[in-house]
Amino acid sequence: MVLVSTRNPLNMGAVARAMSNFGVFHLRVVDPYEVAFRRAKSAVGASELLANAEEFSSVADAVADCALVVGTTAVGPREVQHPVRSLEDGARVIRRKLAPAKVALLFGSEKYGLSNNDMSHCHWLMRIPTRAEHRSMNLGQAAAICLYELVRKGRPGGPIERKPVANAAEVERITTVLFDVLRFTRYWNPGSSKSTEEKVRRLIRRLHLEKGDAEVLLGMLRQVLWKVNVDSKK
Amino acid sequence: MVLVSTRNPLNMGAVARAMSNFGVFHLRVVDPYEVAFRRAKSAVGASELLANAEEFSSVADAVADCALVVGTTAVGPREVQHPVRSLEDGARVIRRKLAPAKVALLFGSEKYGLSNNDMSHCHWLMRIPTRAEHRSMNLGQAAAICLYELVRKGRPGGPIERKPVANAAEVERITTVLFDVLRFTRYWNPGSSKSTEEKVRRLIRRLHLEKGDAEVLLGMLRQVLWKVNVDSKK
Repeated sequence: MVLVSTRNPLNMGAVARAMSNFGVFHLRVVDPYEVAFRRAKSAVGASELLANAEEFSSVADAVADCALVVGTTAVGPREVQHPVRSLEDGARVIRRKLAPAKVALLFGSEKYGLSNNDMSHCHWLMRIPTRAEHRSMNLGQAAAICLYELVRKGRPGGPIERKPVANAAEVERITTVLFDVLRFTRYWNPGSSKSTEEKVRRLIRRLHLEKGDAEVLLGMLRQVLWKVNVDSKK
Repeated sequence: MVLVSTRNPLNMGAVARAMSNFGVFHLRVVDPYEVAFRRAKSAVGASELLANAEEFSSVADAVADCALVVGTTAVGPREVQHPVRSLEDGARVIRRKLAPAKVALLFGSEKYGLSNNDMSHCHWLMRIPTRAEHRSMNLGQAAAICLYELVRKGRPGGPIERKPVANAAEVERITTVLFDVLRFTRYWNPGSSKSTEEKVRRLIRRLHLEKGDAEVLLGMLRQVLWKVNVDSKK
């Protein structure tokens, strides 16, 4: 579980408690409101789980070692750029992945949810099927429902054999080298906007790169970057 | 939803919010801690649902007009006198009943849960499958999970909506431009073998490119090729 920019210590505590209820023990926080984080950690009855929460300054760092990054959203598929799965479908996909690889589940701030930039690090989004007239859930409750659904016993039937997929750090490395290539080759104008970067970041995630393929592509991109660099200095 | 002897106004508010999220509107409270109930009702942002909550002095009165009364418990079947269903099974039974008749779902106090007397009004009990080492859930979270499961649609939802994928011609166009790029940048030696080409061709197919993404990638590759070409002629 990754909490991004959470502000309310009670919510952090509630998430930690639900995690303990359902046997999920790794909590990471990104850019938390400092006072809230300290208060949550020192609250009476605060769990070991909360005390051991790891703090990161960016989503990229927090999900670096994860093979699948899933965001949560209260809004419908038409309002976001990402594929959106229902919690039930999404949880089924995550359960299939979980055994061999780390999966990050991201929750945004109480007020704004995940930003577009946060989401650009996600492979897809998951939505709890709340009523259209009152979509936005309390953070602690939303987390509890996701955890409940995630630990639900799966249907019988063996997992599908898959090649190991690239983790988020490997995918992000490709992304940043590609950004350099796009700048050097003037595919991007010097002042290219944040949203253009986010579009490309999302595109790269949609490729669901296998580990081996990610290495090959990174090698290609580095070679391109080197060549463009050398030539432009002639 | 029937809350019995709830003490914390925040929990009452949380239950009401989750009810609104999932479209369940009748809240009844039995013997609430008076201060908590008044505080919850008058809280900023307290819902209409909470304002309309009905107050009763006994469980018997609160469930009088219900055809099915279900209690919730954190403990296992061996510790109570009642039949205990998992939430998933119980919710299925409740969904079958709900259409023609009123069903009451009881939650006990934060500290002690439902008393034996409260339970004696129940047809059976329902349990959320938490970890044996940490069974007891926060009231607001437990209620949210029950509501989520109760309004669950019988069948799993439809598959994720997919964008149209690139056809073979579009994928092959990307492949050939990439081949040129790899030659120009000396990623490949002049005499690179057929099998090397095939490896890259397979890799590109494994990406399962969407149509739109294929166009974007082709544009990037053409720009790289143009730049490498121009520079090498300097």
